[in-house]
Amino acid sequence: MKNPLVIALGGNALQSGKGPANAASQLAVIQNTAGQLVRILQTGQPLAIVHGNGPQVGRILLQNEAAAAITPAMPLDVCGAMSQGMIGYHIQQALGQRMAAAGLPGRPVTLVTQVRVSAEDPAFDRPSKPIGPFYTQDKAEWIAKEKGFVFREDAGRGWRRVVASPLPLEVVELAQVRALLDAGFVPITAGGGGIPVVSTPTGLAGVAAVIDKDLAAWRLAEGLEAATLVILTEVEHACLRYGQADEQPLLRVGADELRAHQKAGHFAEGSMGPKVEAALRFVEGGSGRRAVITRLDLALEGLSGERGTQVLG
Amino acid sequence: MKNPLVIALGGNALQSGKGPANAASQLAVIQNTAGQLVRILQTGQPLAIVHGNGPQVGRILLQNEAAAAITPAMPLDVCGAMSQGMIGYHIQQALGQRMAAAGLPGRPVTLVTQVRVSAEDPAFDRPSKPIGPFYTQDKAEWIAKEKGFVFREDAGRGWRRVVASPLPLEVVELAQVRALLDAGFVPITAGGGGIPVVSTPTGLAGVAAVIDKDLAAWRLAEGLEAATLVILTEVEHACLRYGQADEQPLLRVGADELRAHQKAGHFAEGSMGPKVEAALRFVEGGSGRRAVITRLDLALEGLSGERGTQVLG
Repeated sequence: MKNPLVIALGGNALQSGKGPANAASQLAVIQNTAGQLVRILQTGQPLAIVHGNGPQVGRILLQNEAAAAITPAMPLDVCGAMSQGMIGYHIQQALGQRMAAAGLPGRPVTLVTQVRVSAEDPAFDRPSKPIGPFYTQDKAEWIAKEKGFVFREDAGRGWRRVVASPLPLEVVELAQVRALLDAGFVPITAGGGGIPVVSTPTGLAGVAAVIDKDLAAWRLAEGLEAATLVILTEVEHACLRYGQADEQPLLRVGADELRAHQKAGHFAEGSMGPKVEAALRFVEGGSGRRAVITRLDLALEGLSGERGTQVLG
Repeated sequence: MKNPLVIALGGNALQSGKGPANAASQLAVIQNTAGQLVRILQTGQPLAIVHGNGPQVGRILLQNEAAAAITPAMPLDVCGAMSQGMIGYHIQQALGQRMAAAGLPGRPVTLVTQVRVSAEDPAFDRPSKPIGPFYTQDKAEWIAKEKGFVFREDAGRGWRRVVASPLPLEVVELAQVRALLDAGFVPITAGGGGIPVVSTPTGLAGVAAVIDKDLAAWRLAEGLEAATLVILTEVEHACLRYGQADEQPLLRVGADELRAHQKAGHFAEGSMGPKVEAALRFVEGGSGRRAVITRLDLALEGLSGERGTQVLG
């Protein structure tokens, strides 16, 4: 098999910021995304797809909460699995349609995917990733006492649960992903960063955490010995001094230089930060590798090296 | 590859009728089920697993309904995809644990699976499968008007939405299931009977319907050229005059004889009926095939021909 390509899809590939978050509008956005993915598949390169799930799992948590008096709310790992089903279904349906229309062989398929993290990861000592609905302080304190959740005040908008965002160590279903790639299919995997699980004496067990999807894509790319990792988002480039008058887009950048920019604080946490970190980890992990950060509609141009931020070893 | 075995898991393999329907109790039931599946896997036979989703998708619909004022309720096809993620995750985690403990190679993985039905299926003219919460007549009439859903009064307990239960024509991701089997993995597929989709001029599209999971298992077994279909449920046998004083379990029965019993009305709709129908369709579809209907904890004995109802050509 040729070295596969791993693509990480950001939130804008999955739903629109405008309009209702209903199934039809999500599917419409994903159909457009599928069109971009088909342009990549037409190059003949094997492809594995990772996607985010932030807003979607947030809504699933809301729904679980709203019905908690009549049916038990599912824990975060199970809600993550549900979001993989939901989002993966739409990607697989839309991409299958587009691939058929383009006469491409192979078909997509979504794998429910666990990603192992360490129970000793320091992230568990300082949960930082906000998830789910906003609460009043009273309600947050009550839930915290009842369930042991951690809450944090969120920019004046109310109290929100925060969970750890540990480092992905291993895509548990990596061999299955590889088997599907080898057979010519397009696996959709590690959705939402994967369902976080830890090793226990009796086997893997889900934990309440959220793995960054770009880092999960890095770990997948490592495991698959991919040559290229493409991270698609809303902007064409990672930038120095982003949003300032003298903002400077990064075009071709070496890993050492990018690390230096990262240390100087150029990339916002929870936004460009994890994308740069994933790109760096990937490129630093082996020779001849390339990571691309670019806009969804420039995916092919990013892959061919013409557009976006090209991160080299 | 050896001819694979297809197993259909009923509701009792996935959750207990007693106690809260929370994640921990579901996982405990599924861990027990995984122990039964490991006994089968120890025979060395390749295995694909299909499972039901009735109560689970019912709760997802409830949750969607409860939060509908704050986030759009997802349609039934998307809720089905969510249930595949939820249930598949637990099966794959629990079975992976048990397989590792038993030193078995290969690992399970859940595929989000679409199953094609015909838009012309007569089932769409007479929706019969109740799903989701009970409503008052007023509320049901209001929703019917608003969304075009069909409701039916359910045995004095209130009004419930009913949807079509069309015949499965094709497991859309069949080739992906086969690739995983060929590579030595254990696919969990067509959960809840699969996400029902119909062909449209632009490709496959989800529809509001529920495919019987035993019939989906039959269609999968056909597609995989399985030699045996095992349908696991709460009782050891299909019976004549079930529940009556002169109830008679069926041990070894030919397809012709079983068809005759079916026509005589021995097997209840929505209960043993679809299991018998799936077994018959499978055995009638090719020579040398066998279908087994038996109790979950007798899975291995059923497979080896010692227990349960053995349906032969």
